[in-house]
Amino acid sequence: MRIVIALGGNALLRRDEALTAENQRKNISIAAKALAPIARQHDLIISHGNGPQVGLLALQGMAYKASEVYPLDILDAETEGMIGYLIEQELANLLPVERPCATLLTQIEVDPKDPAFAQPTKPIGPFYSETEANQLARERGWSIARDGEHFRRIVASPRPKRIFELGVIELLVNQGVIVICAGGGGIPTVQLEDGRLIGVEAVIDKDLASSLLARQLKADIFLMLTDVDAIYDAWLEPEARAFRRVSPQAISEYVFATGSMAPKVEAACEFVEQTGGIAGIGQLKDTSRIMTGEAGTVIAPNMDGIRWWP
Amino acid sequence: MRIVIALGGNALLRRDEALTAENQRKNISIAAKALAPIARQHDLIISHGNGPQVGLLALQGMAYKASEVYPLDILDAETEGMIGYLIEQELANLLPVERPCATLLTQIEVDPKDPAFAQPTKPIGPFYSETEANQLARERGWSIARDGEHFRRIVASPRPKRIFELGVIELLVNQGVIVICAGGGGIPTVQLEDGRLIGVEAVIDKDLASSLLARQLKADIFLMLTDVDAIYDAWLEPEARAFRRVSPQAISEYVFATGSMAPKVEAACEFVEQTGGIAGIGQLKDTSRIMTGEAGTVIAPNMDGIRWWP
Repeated sequence: MRIVIALGGNALLRRDEALTAENQRKNISIAAKALAPIARQHDLIISHGNGPQVGLLALQGMAYKASEVYPLDILDAETEGMIGYLIEQELANLLPVERPCATLLTQIEVDPKDPAFAQPTKPIGPFYSETEANQLARERGWSIARDGEHFRRIVASPRPKRIFELGVIELLVNQGVIVICAGGGGIPTVQLEDGRLIGVEAVIDKDLASSLLARQLKADIFLMLTDVDAIYDAWLEPEARAFRRVSPQAISEYVFATGSMAPKVEAACEFVEQTGGIAGIGQLKDTSRIMTGEAGTVIAPNMDGIRWWP
Repeated sequence: MRIVIALGGNALLRRDEALTAENQRKNISIAAKALAPIARQHDLIISHGNGPQVGLLALQGMAYKASEVYPLDILDAETEGMIGYLIEQELANLLPVERPCATLLTQIEVDPKDPAFAQPTKPIGPFYSETEANQLARERGWSIARDGEHFRRIVASPRPKRIFELGVIELLVNQGVIVICAGGGGIPTVQLEDGRLIGVEAVIDKDLASSLLARQLKADIFLMLTDVDAIYDAWLEPEARAFRRVSPQAISEYVFATGSMAPKVEAACEFVEQTGGIAGIGQLKDTSRIMTGEAGTVIAPNMDGIRWWP
């Protein structure tokens, strides 16, 4: 089988942990142990989040020379290197040499006319005071929004349209290589009218990008691994209940939190509807059990009704 | 033909330029114009330096949280992402779609018993006062050395032994993909006794790593592009003269500056002696003319005597 797995940022770093190199390696080592059994048996393509890491690079850049902070496309490329390297090294350490891993920089096309560019929503990088925030907005044309007591830069989160390295990814997967790609949702790239590509300041949702990857690679299974054990209806409410198995049609009747579960559900539904494959959402430690329906939420075609946990 | 090109850090950033994103993109765009004609006609594998970029990341990390500075293997991976992305995007913009580019993270094995680890020589990152330097040496076990009026961290520069992603690189090149890899000399990696790989704090010389790449890929031509127009005997002396064409045996009678031309000459000689191919050293803008012997220094087998410029 061909399996695409999206590792959530929260699966790679607990929310209460400092973003040190040691913590990243420790968590990625745990993730690798969960993925290795799958990598031994199946075609495997791994994508990953990068929210905390891009935030760290933005903080470091601001702390050194605020006037020369790098744009988001380059920061994303840096995190694809950083995180991809650690995943590749830790996973390859658990696999036989005949199952090589490769980390591939990935540019993903977005539409410059995507309405997201007119209405940025994705907070990124450090917290600022109102004065600092206003100054940054003036000096750099950043969009700024209140985030609790502070202010943060917000950027567009346009939809992924095309994976430029798709042919190369496919070539490697067909030769038995485990490919790590599309990190952080891919490097957001626009095609200009003259045909040239240029990176843009945006963040593509990692789950939507991974869904595109899974669809275009005609994966059989698409897993999104995070720190929540399943998709819940009425999350955090007393009557909360977790979906066990549900069709795209049935789950689309429910409403989920924007920016967390909603894009995961959307990414899963797009994949299942367009390919007839199976999507799973749950915790990293349950990876194998999600695939067998013993944990997490499975979204599958042609389901009658909804099965709930427990 | 199969051609490996190593882009020197000084070919990608003039020594008097600030390391901004704009300057990097501008210079890489110029480099891409020089490489595109070769990419259209030949198999092409591109490696690159990363000295200024690793220095910048180290500075940014120190400015933000000095206690959580990332190790060099991870910083190297970040720069492979950053620089590889810009090369891939700028070069692909000049090529037809049937010549795709791919940027591959590259781990290169070094020997933990390499004598370089006992005698670090490669300066890296910010300049410190003597007090700061002594404190860093004490707190982190860094090796520190005087650099002019200041002090800098120095790290080991062990020899490259094995390119772990070689099979993947070869697979892509054989399918017509232009591969960008081994950036910054590759991520220095040690194989432990139990077989596991782990990144180490070191910097592999980019030219020696690129020579290994060129040899193992059985390249026909190996070019090292920098900001100096040729290899000189008696560089900076009144009697300085530039080699035009020379054999590995003949050039090995001369002495070159450690850390700049000496590793380039060594890298070229290793390649020519072991493969019978041709190595060239010169300026980026002369790329095509170095290949035809109209510029730069060519090191080739079976030469009688030395030809000098002009």
